[in-house]
Amino acid sequence: MDTPQETLKEKIKKQGDLVRSLKAAGAEKAEIDAAVGVLLGLKKQQTGSSGTSKKMAIREKIFSTITSVFKKHGAVTIDTPVFELKEILAGKYGEDSKLIYDLEDQGGEKCSLRYDLTVPFARFLAMNGTQYPNIKRYQIAKVYRRDQPAMTKGRMREFYQCDFDVAGVYDPMVADAEVVRIMCECLTALDIGNFTIKINHRKLLDGIFEICGVPEAKIRPISSAVDKLDKLPWEEVKKEMLDEKGLDPVAADRIGEYVILKGGKELLTQLLDNKELVSNKNVKAGLDDMILLFQYLEIFNVLDKMSFDLSLARGLDYYTGIIYEAVTEQSGQPKAEDGIQIKRKTKKDSDELDETTVGVGSIAAGGRYDNLVGMFANTSSGGIPCVGVSIGVERVFSILLQRAQLTSVKANEVEVYVISVGDGLLEERMGICTELWDAGIKAEFMYKRKPKLQAQFTVCDRDQIPYAVIVGKSELDRGEIKIKDMRSKEQGEGGGIIVPRSQMVEELRKRLRN
Amino acid sequence: MDTPQETLKEKIKKQGDLVRSLKAAGAEKAEIDAAVGVLLGLKKQQTGSSGTSKKMAIREKIFSTITSVFKKHGAVTIDTPVFELKEILAGKYGEDSKLIYDLEDQGGEKCSLRYDLTVPFARFLAMNGTQYPNIKRYQIAKVYRRDQPAMTKGRMREFYQCDFDVAGVYDPMVADAEVVRIMCECLTALDIGNFTIKINHRKLLDGIFEICGVPEAKIRPISSAVDKLDKLPWEEVKKEMLDEKGLDPVAADRIGEYVILKGGKELLTQLLDNKELVSNKNVKAGLDDMILLFQYLEIFNVLDKMSFDLSLARGLDYYTGIIYEAVTEQSGQPKAEDGIQIKRKTKKDSDELDETTVGVGSIAAGGRYDNLVGMFANTSSGGIPCVGVSIGVERVFSILLQRAQLTSVKANEVEVYVISVGDGLLEERMGICTELWDAGIKAEFMYKRKPKLQAQFTVCDRDQIPYAVIVGKSELDRGEIKIKDMRSKEQGEGGGIIVPRSQMVEELRKRLRN
Repeated sequence: MDTPQETLKEKIKKQGDLVRSLKAAGAEKAEIDAAVGVLLGLKKQQTGSSGTSKKMAIREKIFSTITSVFKKHGAVTIDTPVFELKEILAGKYGEDSKLIYDLEDQGGEKCSLRYDLTVPFARFLAMNGTQYPNIKRYQIAKVYRRDQPAMTKGRMREFYQCDFDVAGVYDPMVADAEVVRIMCECLTALDIGNFTIKINHRKLLDGIFEICGVPEAKIRPISSAVDKLDKLPWEEVKKEMLDEKGLDPVAADRIGEYVILKGGKELLTQLLDNKELVSNKNVKAGLDDMILLFQYLEIFNVLDKMSFDLSLARGLDYYTGIIYEAVTEQSGQPKAEDGIQIKRKTKKDSDELDETTVGVGSIAAGGRYDNLVGMFANTSSGGIPCVGVSIGVERVFSILLQRAQLTSVKANEVEVYVISVGDGLLEERMGICTELWDAGIKAEFMYKRKPKLQAQFTVCDRDQIPYAVIVGKSELDRGEIKIKDMRSKEQGEGGGIIVPRSQMVEELRKRLRN
Repeated sequence: MDTPQETLKEKIKKQGDLVRSLKAAGAEKAEIDAAVGVLLGLKKQQTGSSGTSKKMAIREKIFSTITSVFKKHGAVTIDTPVFELKEILAGKYGEDSKLIYDLEDQGGEKCSLRYDLTVPFARFLAMNGTQYPNIKRYQIAKVYRRDQPAMTKGRMREFYQCDFDVAGVYDPMVADAEVVRIMCECLTALDIGNFTIKINHRKLLDGIFEICGVPEAKIRPISSAVDKLDKLPWEEVKKEMLDEKGLDPVAADRIGEYVILKGGKELLTQLLDNKELVSNKNVKAGLDDMILLFQYLEIFNVLDKMSFDLSLARGLDYYTGIIYEAVTEQSGQPKAEDGIQIKRKTKKDSDELDETTVGVGSIAAGGRYDNLVGMFANTSSGGIPCVGVSIGVERVFSILLQRAQLTSVKANEVEVYVISVGDGLLEERMGICTELWDAGIKAEFMYKRKPKLQAQFTVCDRDQIPYAVIVGKSELDRGEIKIKDMRSKEQGEGGGIIVPRSQMVEELRKRLRN
C-alpha cells in the first residue's frame, strides 16, 4: 500500500539510514548537518508541525494575494501606530475591554495597544478628515488581546487583522456593493474552497423588531440574541430573549417567524409585498437599500454567492446599514499551533470576528458604520460614513496550513544552486553567483571551501531548488558549465546540459520563464 | 522664469480660481470636493508636507526593493512577537534600557516591547537552534522606544528596523562577504546616491589596543571613545581617553597613530608588513579575516565601495569579528515629520544605528556577533555564530521623501478610470469595471449616479491615473467605448480612440504593457 503516510515513513527510514552511514563513515559536519536537516524536515511533516519559515511563506502568500486585490480596486494603505491613547479605546469594546493591553505608566500619556484596526482607523479619519474626505484604505497589521493565558499560547495574544474600508459620502450602496465584490474576489483568490456570503441590513432587522413589539431599549440586546442562531437552536435563543432580556413571549414568537427566512432576490420581493412590514420606516429604508445592492451585485457578478439571511445580526453596536459574513464549507474548529482544539468562546454582546476562536467556517465579515468616526470627531470634520470588511487572515492561514502538503511549500525562493564537482572551486562558485545576482536570478552556493557533491545535492532537495549550475575544473577551463534540472529523475551527475558560460544567464532565464 | 516653485504657485492659483467658480456656479458637492482635493494636494506640495498614503507608497517601495534583494539571496523571513519577556531584554542595551516599554502588570508574565530585532532573533535561535542550525533570515518590523516625549512625536516612538542575518557555522568570511554584498545591493537598488562602506575588524582593533598598552578592562571603553572619531576631532577623543577612561597618554598617542589609517587592500599589506602588529594573536586573526574578505568582496564586485577604516569601532559590545557601516553623500540631519530639525543624540556606550537620530549619512550597519545567541541558549543548542546588517530604512525613507517630487508619487495604483459622458450610466460603468477587474486591470469609477465629466477628469488628474475608458450612451449602443491616454495634452473629450467594447481589455493591456 503506497499511501502518502507510508511513503513518508519510508523516506524517513531511508534518510535516517543515510545519516547513520554518513556518521559511521566520518563524513564532514556540513554534509551530516544537511542530511539531518532533511530528516528533521521529513519528521516534521509526519507530526504535522512545520517550520516557522514555511509558515511565514504561507502567510506572505495570503497577504500578497489580498493586497493585490485591494490595489486592483484603487486602495491605499495607511499605517496607524500600535499605541492609541487609553481613552480612545475605552468604552468601545463592551466587556471585552478587559482584554486591552495597557502600557505601564512610565511617564507621558497613558497608552494602550490597539485591540482592532477599526477604532484606530476611525480615530485617524476623525483627526484627518479634511485631508481624506473620501478614501479606500486597507491595513494588514497585528492587534493585541490579553486573552486567557491558560488557554492561549504566546502568539495568540497577537494576531493579524486585515481590514478594507471605504470612507466618504457617496450615492447609496455603490461603495457597499464594491466592498462585497472585493470580499468575494479575495476569498476566491485565496482559494479556500466554496463560500457563501450571508447578508442582511441593520435597519431592516431593527424595523422588524419594532413591528414585532420589541421596546427600543431592548433592540440591541435582542439583536445580540438573534445573532446566536448560527450556533444555538431557536428554542434556546428564545429562552434567552424571555429569561435574560425580559421580552414578551408574543414578540419573541413573531421574531421567530421572520428570522428563519433565507433566500435571494425573491425573498426581497416577498418582504416588499408585506404591507405591514413596508409601513415601517426602517424596514422600508433597509429593503430599498437591499434592492439596490442586489441590483449592483448582479452587475458585479457575485450575486450567486449571496444568501439574504434575516438571522444574521452581528453583535457590534456600531453597524448602521448592511452587514455580512462569509462562511466556508471548510468547517471544523480551528486548532492552536500545538494542535490542541480551541473552544469557540461565546462572546456576550459582541460577535466581532474573533480570530482566535472564530466560528464554524466564518472567514470574513463587515458592514456599514456611519457613526463611529463621529464619536471621535471634533466639530471640524464631523462624522464620515464608512463601509468595510475584515478578512479573517488567521483563519485563512489555518485552513491553508492544514491543507498544504508542507513539502510543497518552498520556504525560500532560490532558483539556482551553484554546485562544484571535485576541487571545491569556492571562488568560481562565488563569481558565478555574482553573475546570477546581477542578472536578477535568485541564487545560492554552499558557504564551504570544499563541499561534498552529495551535501550540495541534499540542499537542493531540502529547499526544492529547481536548477543547479554545476561547475568542474575541466569544464571551466573550456569555458563551460552544466545546467541541471534538479526536479528531473536522473540522479547524480547524469542529466543536465553543457552550455558555454557566456550563455548561462540566458539559458537559465529561458528555463525559469517556463 | 519657469521654476518648479513658480509653476506650482500658478497651478495653485488656477485651481483656486476653479474652486471659486465651481462654488459660484452652484456646482455639485462631489465636483467641488474633488477640486478642493486637488487644491489641498498642491498646497501640501508647496509646504513640503505630504499625504500619509503617499508616504506609505514610498515606504512600501523601500520594503519591496529590499525584500527582493534578500530573497534573491535565498533569505526567508521569520516573524517574532512584539512582546518579549522582560528578563530577555534586561541588561542587553546598557543605559538605554530605560527606553524599553514595559507592559502594565495585568497578570501573567512580565513583558516588554521589543527594542530592536537582533535580541529577539538571537532568543529565537537559542530556542529553535536545533531546527535552524543555519539560516538566512530577514525581518522588517517595528521596534519601540520610550524616547523623550518632549522631542519626539507620536510615531517616532515606533519605527521600522530592517535586519538581515546569516546564522550558522561556515567556512571563514564566506557568509560575511555575502552580507556585505547584500548591503551594497540594497543601497544600490534603493537609489539613494553614492555610498561608501567603512569596514574594520574587532579583533584587529582589540589587538592594536593591546599593543598600544591598553589594559584589558579598558578595551571596550577605549573602543567606544574611538568610535566617536566620525563626530569629534582626535584631540577631544584623546581627552576622553585620558580624563574619563584614565588611559596612559603614551598609549593614547600610539592609538592615535593607528586610528587615522584608512585605505584599501594596500593598507592590509602595510599592516601585514608590521612585525610588531602581526606578532599579536588578535591582530593576526583580524588581518587574516580581512585579507580573505577583501578577496571575496573583489569576486562579488563590491570592492570599490569599501573603505578599510581603523577608526570604525562601533559601540555595541557583542560584535566579535568584522564590523561595517555604510555612509552616504546625502548628508544633513534628519528631520521630524513636522520639519523640525532633530539633534543627533550622542549615545554613551552604544552606537547602534539609532533610527531617529541617525548620524550624518550613516545608513546601514552591522557586523559579526558570535556569542549573542549563546547568552540565551541552554545546553542543547549552544551558541550559534551570526553575521548581519541593519538597513536604516527610516533614514532611507527620509532621504527619498526629501528628494521625491511628491507629485510624481502615485498613492494608489489605479490604471484605468471608467468615466461617463452625459447620462451618468452608473450601471454601465460598474459593468465595465467588473470586466476590467476580472482581467486583472486596476480600475475605479466614481461612486455617483450622475457625476459631472469635469469631476471625473479631476480625479484622474489628482490620482495620476494613466488611462480613462469613456462611455457614452450612443457609443455603448453601437458597442463601442473610448480609450483616452490621460497624460496626453489634448484636453477634454478630444483625444483618445474609439474601440469595440469586445476589444477594450486587449487594447488596454497592450497600452499598459508599454
